[in-house]
Amino acid sequence: MIPNQIKRFIALFSELPGVGPRQASRFTFWFVRQGPSVTSEYSHALRQLADKVGVCKDCFFVFDSSKSEERLCEICSDPKRNRRLLAVLEKETDLITFEKTKSFNGLYYVLGDTINPLDQNWQKSLKVPELLERLSKSEQKIEEIILALPQTARGELTTEELSRALAPSGAKITRLGRGLPRGAEIEFTDEETLRAAIQRRE
Amino acid sequence: MIPNQIKRFIALFSELPGVGPRQASRFTFWFVRQGPSVTSEYSHALRQLADKVGVCKDCFFVFDSSKSEERLCEICSDPKRNRRLLAVLEKETDLITFEKTKSFNGLYYVLGDTINPLDQNWQKSLKVPELLERLSKSEQKIEEIILALPQTARGELTTEELSRALAPSGAKITRLGRGLPRGAEIEFTDEETLRAAIQRRE
Repeated sequence: MIPNQIKRFIALFSELPGVGPRQASRFTFWFVRQGPSVTSEYSHALRQLADKVGVCKDCFFVFDSSKSEERLCEICSDPKRNRRLLAVLEKETDLITFEKTKSFNGLYYVLGDTINPLDQNWQKSLKVPELLERLSKSEQKIEEIILALPQTARGELTTEELSRALAPSGAKITRLGRGLPRGAEIEFTDEETLRAAIQRRE
Repeated sequence: MIPNQIKRFIALFSELPGVGPRQASRFTFWFVRQGPSVTSEYSHALRQLADKVGVCKDCFFVFDSSKSEERLCEICSDPKRNRRLLAVLEKETDLITFEKTKSFNGLYYVLGDTINPLDQNWQKSLKVPELLERLSKSEQKIEEIILALPQTARGELTTEELSRALAPSGAKITRLGRGLPRGAEIEFTDEETLRAAIQRRE
């Protein structure tokens, strides 16, 4: 009763992050209702993404590959950035948020994920060998590495393991400050955060 | 800093049902990380959907347009279905759930939505003129119309308004049995409950 194209489409779109079969079905019938011209627009956008968006060979952020022949993103190819300072991030959207603060002028490294404790091969999954190679080959020595990872169990594990893995590089390893977020009420702050805020009172 | 293709992609995918800019960003960078071959696969699936999935001219459900020249879905072209009985549904996934009960042998009509109270033009949006035309042109007179709409405020409003709009057709207008709990969506109802509701229609 359900055409095969629809079944395949639902199976494929169920693999998107955070999407299950039910939402994938909603997408599918939404596309059918929008008609061929809207559906083609999405198809085209995906093709553009495949053809014109590159991944920076140094930091793994994205760049417009039709404009650059160096395989470098705008940040890595910007001569005004401080090449002695490196922030290691979980994902691309973290980089965008970082840039919005206008408080950081160094370079980045996008891991793509945090450590999955079941993954024996996490160093490879998180591109740690590539990071070590970048540190050793950098023209200007990287003096400080900020491990700017989420304050979750997996983020903490990743910070610990990376601190160990990056120690031989000789760079100073730091992490983001911990304390009360803007707008926080003492009453509703979790103990872990409050403990950190008391210890780091300034 | 963010390539234009990425910005356009995020804007486009934010329009999918239930997706906001944040999830659309996650999709985008997920695609970039998967690489061009995966991204092309999705692009191809969308093109297949645009090219090979048709919308039935009678009920607005989907069908494989490469197999049918009549522009009719499998249900509407099935001679074994009872053409005197019609179920009016909100959406395609409701039809799939209906079929799974094996308790209904009539035909369908997919509205595509329920009435949005702000929409002055709801009759057109819900394809009511097409439904009235179908009722008047049907070779076998439709004797009963089941308004199988969700038990939500918008669903109830749609049931009331459609009862009025369809009264001149002379068909008996029924609705699903009260076995459905208040607030239930057809799509999420278990088959047993839906089967009881079909049998107890009033």
